[in-house]
Amino acid sequence: MAKDKKLVEHITAMDEDFAQWYTDVVRKAELCDYTSVKGCMVFKPAGYAIWELIQKNLDERFKATGVENVYLPMFIPESLLEKEKDHVEGFAPEVAWVTHGGLNELQERLCVRPTSETLFCDFYSKEIESYRDLPKVYNQWCSVVRWEKETRPFLRSREFLWQEGHTAHATAEEAEARTIQMLNVYADFCEDVLAIPVIKGRKTDKEKFAGAEATYTIESLMHDGKALQSGTSHNFGDGFARAFGVQYTDKDNKLQYVHQTSWGMTTRMIGAIIMVHGDDSGLVLPPKVAPTQIMIVPIMQKKEGVLEKAEELRSVLASNFRVKVDDSDKSPGFKFAEQEVKGIPLRVEVGPKDIEAGQAVVVRRDTREKTIVPFDKLSETCEALLAQMHDDMYAKAKAHRDANTHVATNWDEFTDILEKKQGFIKAMWCGEEACETAIKDETGATTRCIPFAQEKLGDVCVHCGKPAKHMVYFGKAY
Amino acid sequence: MAKDKKLVEHITAMDEDFAQWYTDVVRKAELCDYTSVKGCMVFKPAGYAIWELIQKNLDERFKATGVENVYLPMFIPESLLEKEKDHVEGFAPEVAWVTHGGLNELQERLCVRPTSETLFCDFYSKEIESYRDLPKVYNQWCSVVRWEKETRPFLRSREFLWQEGHTAHATAEEAEARTIQMLNVYADFCEDVLAIPVIKGRKTDKEKFAGAEATYTIESLMHDGKALQSGTSHNFGDGFARAFGVQYTDKDNKLQYVHQTSWGMTTRMIGAIIMVHGDDSGLVLPPKVAPTQIMIVPIMQKKEGVLEKAEELRSVLASNFRVKVDDSDKSPGFKFAEQEVKGIPLRVEVGPKDIEAGQAVVVRRDTREKTIVPFDKLSETCEALLAQMHDDMYAKAKAHRDANTHVATNWDEFTDILEKKQGFIKAMWCGEEACETAIKDETGATTRCIPFAQEKLGDVCVHCGKPAKHMVYFGKAY
Repeated sequence: MAKDKKLVEHITAMDEDFAQWYTDVVRKAELCDYTSVKGCMVFKPAGYAIWELIQKNLDERFKATGVENVYLPMFIPESLLEKEKDHVEGFAPEVAWVTHGGLNELQERLCVRPTSETLFCDFYSKEIESYRDLPKVYNQWCSVVRWEKETRPFLRSREFLWQEGHTAHATAEEAEARTIQMLNVYADFCEDVLAIPVIKGRKTDKEKFAGAEATYTIESLMHDGKALQSGTSHNFGDGFARAFGVQYTDKDNKLQYVHQTSWGMTTRMIGAIIMVHGDDSGLVLPPKVAPTQIMIVPIMQKKEGVLEKAEELRSVLASNFRVKVDDSDKSPGFKFAEQEVKGIPLRVEVGPKDIEAGQAVVVRRDTREKTIVPFDKLSETCEALLAQMHDDMYAKAKAHRDANTHVATNWDEFTDILEKKQGFIKAMWCGEEACETAIKDETGATTRCIPFAQEKLGDVCVHCGKPAKHMVYFGKAY
Repeated sequence: MAKDKKLVEHITAMDEDFAQWYTDVVRKAELCDYTSVKGCMVFKPAGYAIWELIQKNLDERFKATGVENVYLPMFIPESLLEKEKDHVEGFAPEVAWVTHGGLNELQERLCVRPTSETLFCDFYSKEIESYRDLPKVYNQWCSVVRWEKETRPFLRSREFLWQEGHTAHATAEEAEARTIQMLNVYADFCEDVLAIPVIKGRKTDKEKFAGAEATYTIESLMHDGKALQSGTSHNFGDGFARAFGVQYTDKDNKLQYVHQTSWGMTTRMIGAIIMVHGDDSGLVLPPKVAPTQIMIVPIMQKKEGVLEKAEELRSVLASNFRVKVDDSDKSPGFKFAEQEVKGIPLRVEVGPKDIEAGQAVVVRRDTREKTIVPFDKLSETCEALLAQMHDDMYAKAKAHRDANTHVATNWDEFTDILEKKQGFIKAMWCGEEACETAIKDETGATTRCIPFAQEKLGDVCVHCGKPAKHMVYFGKAY
């Protein structure tokens, strides 16, 4: 469709139909589109550019902790996938199988990687001999495939982009420390870059990764009160190492199994940005991952000197910001609406009267607040406004989460909250999987995590009344 | 294998067995490794880091010409692949087919993309409506799969990494201009960044891309005298647009077909770096894509102050260079050998005597030339040496290419050169495919390109004696 037609269409109000609002925003902000390949999507320039900024920032954080990037094949031979029992049970039902290469049938089927633990184990089993070869702290940026039945842009698609880190260590302690270290990298990234507050914790055994000893997670809350698992970090102990024979000779010349971890974050974080920060006018991008941070809109751009001034301001701002001039032949009002849909953090308006007064009007996307700024203060004001906008977006998201986090001390309260409210429910739990399953079956709410920050809300399980083991965050989730 | 064992193994001399030398260097420089997946490789940290630097530099060059990055699915439905006749004939015999998703057989087979023209056409057919939507200048970084029978690290593998640009334009002229523009980006990149001289030209109809009207190429010459196609840029005219119905409404409200291009460069450029610049001691990395540009080696590092000085120098150099200190417990001689194998451009040696004299010894990887440098001049000297090294590596590669470029004016000369010498053969050609095929069948040499810089070496075809149409570069190629 031509751009003009697209924009004048209506965006459904969030509170009217959140799912439709999400789809409208994704489409009108031109982030992605469906394709002829069922369940797979196109990342359009505006969507992919957000991912590039996420990648760049995360990759720098990884490398600062000693991570090295590698690239392993996208195919996994069936026999390799089957080596670790829990893992294959978890993934085999949802992988895509390659059976033919060129004109010939393959002797062994290959699956398109749903995740690469098995390939890394195979690689490490050849690569690691002695304690001198440890630790291995590798990561790869790639796409993976999971044959999902229901798909939604960014949140669940058959192919998605992610990074997957895979490490091997001499000791269990070192592996556990790396697992927590990477969880903290994800949490800091979400809060400091995406302005999304997260809860850190451990998954229950039922919810942990197929083959892991422990899975740690960061959980965030979307505007509609549903939770989103936003990044996970797994400690495998020596389970995979035993299945794949990944061993090293220690300093006493004794053969030992390595201890392994893996951790990943995906393009679903673009979905999180939309659902945490967006509003009825469209996307609101956190300044640090906004591909265009400032859009300059010339007013009465045909008047002499206006476009020149806009270009001059752009060139000054370009040394500190990702900035563009919208000099298209659309009306200023249309441009404003378009930039709102696309979530561009700051708009700078400059017209003949502004030029005469030596100033520009700067408008924040999130609050619509206008600031009149002398030209020579423009750069420092934009910097301050973007920093303030990040802080305010974080504070607003946190306030929303806090207002939508409830305590249930008994089952009546639990079901009452689910019926009348939305968001997280904090409650005590007995630690038994059967009880966890019953809660899910009865209500649709799952354990999101056993938070590191435990609180004692009571002595007994909110559901079965047996002695409580943990305080848990429950919620409905994407 | 443990590192120590690996290194003391012998690297085969280039002139003794070039193919074995290549394999030895790839393995000992720890660039990549074979996997349990036949024909697929692991990019190890040292290899992947080169690709990251190639990506970063190329991506900046692309974006400077207005390119936007996107990501399209890795799967192509069989019916979509079949829409353009020449294209499917070229690729169908070498694609991998996905036939099952999860536990179910798919209704339509999907191939894993060998290249994405068909997907981009499908996308553009929905995305483009009016002349206002043009041009589209999109690129993606991804991996592609071609089910090759014979594979070699970096040069030919079943899965490889690349970028593929795909553009759509209103006019034939604009498409042609973009095709040439991107060829020039590749040529400049090879020469300015990889220090590899290239010949620019057009492929013959026989050698062009499946479905293209014209394929342009840059060809480089490896140390063993074989050619390597190093980057290609294709002009499709409106052929794909007609097959896929990619149309736009022009300013006069008339429906027109778009004109399209595509262009790609792959991880085989890592193979080119090895084969153009390497020597009997291992890899020699062009400074601009060396993941570590400077390695500081402390001499007698247990003496007081040595490690501290090494760290101090590192910290000074770190603001301008990718620099590391090798403070492992290996001997300096062992460290020197290891860094030579890995191709690190500059080595800085610093020991107690140097510290006393306030200086360090800087050694170039390519020439082994030593320079004694006062500490306070270290940064500027390293900068000058790296710049000089780039220029010298380029000049050396060009001199090698020129010395191995021969002129044949008749068939006896042509076969005589092929028998006794190596490298490119410049010769006149009639322009007929049958003659080109005969030359290939008789000698194994193929047309590398019809260079833009034409020379008139005679009036008749070097093979058949008919009137000559073009001067062509012939050669044996990877």
